[in-house]
Amino acid sequence: MISKEQIKYIRSLHRKKFRDINQQFIIEGPKMIAEAIRYAPESLIQIYGTETVDERLPEHALFEEIDNKALGQISTLKHPQKQVAICSYLPNVSTRPDFYIALDTIQDPGNLGTILRLASWFGVEHIIASKETVDCYNPKVVQASMGAIFNVNIEYVELKEAFENTELPIYGSLLEGENIYEKQISKKGILVMGNEGNGISEELLSFITDPVTIPQFGKGESLNVAMAAAVLLSEFSRPR
Amino acid sequence: MISKEQIKYIRSLHRKKFRDINQQFIIEGPKMIAEAIRYAPESLIQIYGTETVDERLPEHALFEEIDNKALGQISTLKHPQKQVAICSYLPNVSTRPDFYIALDTIQDPGNLGTILRLASWFGVEHIIASKETVDCYNPKVVQASMGAIFNVNIEYVELKEAFENTELPIYGSLLEGENIYEKQISKKGILVMGNEGNGISEELLSFITDPVTIPQFGKGESLNVAMAAAVLLSEFSRPR
Repeated sequence: MISKEQIKYIRSLHRKKFRDINQQFIIEGPKMIAEAIRYAPESLIQIYGTETVDERLPEHALFEEIDNKALGQISTLKHPQKQVAICSYLPNVSTRPDFYIALDTIQDPGNLGTILRLASWFGVEHIIASKETVDCYNPKVVQASMGAIFNVNIEYVELKEAFENTELPIYGSLLEGENIYEKQISKKGILVMGNEGNGISEELLSFITDPVTIPQFGKGESLNVAMAAAVLLSEFSRPR
Repeated sequence: MISKEQIKYIRSLHRKKFRDINQQFIIEGPKMIAEAIRYAPESLIQIYGTETVDERLPEHALFEEIDNKALGQISTLKHPQKQVAICSYLPNVSTRPDFYIALDTIQDPGNLGTILRLASWFGVEHIIASKETVDCYNPKVVQASMGAIFNVNIEYVELKEAFENTELPIYGSLLEGENIYEKQISKKGILVMGNEGNGISEELLSFITDPVTIPQFGKGESLNVAMAAAVLLSEFSRPR
């Protein structure tokens, strides 16, 4: 059973304001819950589901069976996926590694989720993001990340400040940059990805030490930011 | 002015059945219309808009001014973008080049649109797709393609038959394939991308002459099909 109060509380977590107040967010479906158990078991607090979870739950995590109607009420999905779980915010990590990504105002939740998933795949453990970037605990971001939210740190900062205080080369994806396939790239640095419509913002451009570009082989007008991230992260990871 | 009958007709084009009967589909917004004018002017039949089009229209194409209410009625978008245009189906091209993509039951319209956009960028002019693949004239595919629908041919075929009748190497993105960064790849071949959930179907696996895989550098569980396409097309395009 789930009380009306609990339903109301979980629904409040659909909104950033209440997530921030309570330092909690939600995840949905067996796959996401499995990823939470695998990578961040301590953050998993309570699961509500029409079916129990296959994996063994961490000791502190509670499971409560609910019916389809209640699931529909607490889910953000059109087609809810068996379970909704409450997680606590993940620890803030501010130690930055030698290679990380900086996101300048990525606004689409699907793009941020996809970039998290790519970062995880290519072994990038840290992302810094401008404060105008979409909230990483937004349910659409969390779902699109396919669990990567649990193994990539994301830190919301003033990018200008971060760039002023680093010795690392700063790679920026720009139209008029150097051909990424020909450029000598190091495995240390910051890869800046700009906003979907406007690219990297004016005030940050002067910090880019290494502008790079993905050459166009055909006719397309542009690649979107997540596709560009896929190609660039592949280039930074592949042996050369 | 737009008549009730015209509104009804355009709304019927939201559905595959009526698109196929009439051999027409719709595109939305100034950007898509500009791409149609640029790459397939002959297919552009009629534009309905709350604002006129900036580019010069092909002579045969008609423009009709409509109000916001009518635009909302004919649009498939939550936030309509000034114009909706009717286009005729693009010519069927069945001459396949030396390098092309084969899609085995891609079901998500956003993924197909993104793959079209990537193909266009990387200069892949031809795609063959299984008959279970989402319709390329689905409005979500068309919009996600950002105009690439006009410069990439897509042909719906029996993949098995196509693979039986080719001498080209057939590259398949598989979990246990050869590391794409290390493999000798030619610029001729067919790159097969499999279904979102199930990968390449059983009956096609035996045709794959060159299984390839994108190695995982981090922790992520998988890359989605569009992201994998981005990385693989980049590898097939880049100088080695």
